[in-house]
Amino acid sequence: MKKQFAAAVDVGGTNTKFGWVDNSGQLYGSGSVKTGEFSRAEDLITRVHKELQNLINFDQSGICGIGVGAPNANYHTGCIHYAPNLDFAKSIVPFASIFTEVSGLKCKITNDANAAAIGEKIYGKAQGMNDFMVVTLGTGLGSGIYTGGQVLYGSDGMAGEMGHTCLIPGGRKCGCGRLGCIERYVSIGGLTTTFLETTEGQKGELRPRQIQALAEEGDKHAIQTYKITGEYLGLHLSSMAALFSPEAIFLSGGLAQSGEVLLSPMRRAFEDNLLSHHKGKIKIELSGLEKQKTALLGAAALAFSSFSV
Amino acid sequence: MKKQFAAAVDVGGTNTKFGWVDNSGQLYGSGSVKTGEFSRAEDLITRVHKELQNLINFDQSGICGIGVGAPNANYHTGCIHYAPNLDFAKSIVPFASIFTEVSGLKCKITNDANAAAIGEKIYGKAQGMNDFMVVTLGTGLGSGIYTGGQVLYGSDGMAGEMGHTCLIPGGRKCGCGRLGCIERYVSIGGLTTTFLETTEGQKGELRPRQIQALAEEGDKHAIQTYKITGEYLGLHLSSMAALFSPEAIFLSGGLAQSGEVLLSPMRRAFEDNLLSHHKGKIKIELSGLEKQKTALLGAAALAFSSFSV
Repeated sequence: MKKQFAAAVDVGGTNTKFGWVDNSGQLYGSGSVKTGEFSRAEDLITRVHKELQNLINFDQSGICGIGVGAPNANYHTGCIHYAPNLDFAKSIVPFASIFTEVSGLKCKITNDANAAAIGEKIYGKAQGMNDFMVVTLGTGLGSGIYTGGQVLYGSDGMAGEMGHTCLIPGGRKCGCGRLGCIERYVSIGGLTTTFLETTEGQKGELRPRQIQALAEEGDKHAIQTYKITGEYLGLHLSSMAALFSPEAIFLSGGLAQSGEVLLSPMRRAFEDNLLSHHKGKIKIELSGLEKQKTALLGAAALAFSSFSV
Repeated sequence: MKKQFAAAVDVGGTNTKFGWVDNSGQLYGSGSVKTGEFSRAEDLITRVHKELQNLINFDQSGICGIGVGAPNANYHTGCIHYAPNLDFAKSIVPFASIFTEVSGLKCKITNDANAAAIGEKIYGKAQGMNDFMVVTLGTGLGSGIYTGGQVLYGSDGMAGEMGHTCLIPGGRKCGCGRLGCIERYVSIGGLTTTFLETTEGQKGELRPRQIQALAEEGDKHAIQTYKITGEYLGLHLSSMAALFSPEAIFLSGGLAQSGEVLLSPMRRAFEDNLLSHHKGKIKIELSGLEKQKTALLGAAALAFSSFSV
């Protein structure tokens, strides 16, 4: 296999990370800038491109393009659409086109969860799989879904938003304006809300790490909070299994690292609620990508899967 | 376009219907037998094949194969898996293989809702669409889903079961053994249950047609029953829209013919619950296929899409 390189960029609400990755998944230098320092996409891109140039310590002839993971990114149009956490994307920003203009390189963009799924397929545990999901559990709940060997983009490039499917009709108010989205229950914010409800506010508003520490000490409210969260996730993933018949579901993101206090009730609820022909057949596992590298490997995998020769 | 013919078979719990269809969607003779009279798939197939032979009144050289729609049918394996309403399929029955053996013709099988979706794409309103859903509202709730121009079959050929995704955690007991499946709320049985709940049983257990007649007379309980049912459907379809970003959703089956008493609250709940970038962009319409012919056209379309030269 001829060695090729892709620039990988992960645009987040706080930091924009970047680096060079080769087609075996090796990372060649990386860095980050504060996203909030840039009010225009052009300025962020120009700075990231300059930093990327400084990191090149390999044969430039092998560069195949740029892959970007970003919230609310549209694979079909190359634009970021109204991302609430990105100052520079309060309207529709043609991020991929600008990056190509600045760098002279081809650029593809997709949302961060899709990038994580592409990374899982190219470098992780989903190699050889055609039907699987990656669910990212962090500030929000994202999902990247493969069906029949292809990323599910839908008619407009924005499909695969499991985080905004309804778990509880009339339930908690979501940032998207609707009620009861699973993201409001199974995410870092969801966990803290459930803890507040479980304790009736008597222990204050704790951060997930504090709730996890309490659970490890045997605190019954903390354990109950993880149990409720895990059961919601397991139940909802069983509905996803009825829709997608995946070979496996991979979890990534900070909340996925909570351990058995979350995963054990999740697996039980999942198995209990699978259709009979699926029982015992669909694996749920943690992502095979190193946590710190998932986003960049995913973005690079997007570039390789789009531009590799 | 060279004229070709497919045998179309629709296996239902009560009747098995069959006929010949050409590639323009014209039906050349049809018939039906009582499914319950046959305790073995071989006997049903032999009988249907004989009846189909008797119906041939065209040039046999144009026959390309057989398409079958059936509950719990697996496209990948050609088998019907444990269909509760089919006496001959209490285990795994290799329906397509048996049909090929008996007839000498190639045979493909899929579940009835997938067949309806293929029919919609080839003969109905989904021509030219790559991302859409067909939802069949009858005794149960079935769905056939196209993503990226392909039917969603998943890793095991059994994907696309929207009917068994959870609407209300811990809700009504479903025939599949789980709680809260949307099929228990949005289907003929679901409507009658909701009417019982709405009237607190004071008007007895009425059939959908009686409930519809009451609604047309302005009965507030009957109207409320359709409103609840429509709102459940609209809410759940908005979650499907977040997942699949379809161009359109088509409704078929008896309950879909209820008119505005169902469709108007459904559309309102759907629009209210769409993600902002989808609002006003995803059509929900009745199927473009004639109600009586949907199943046979779908089965024929499966054959043409699999075998047509």
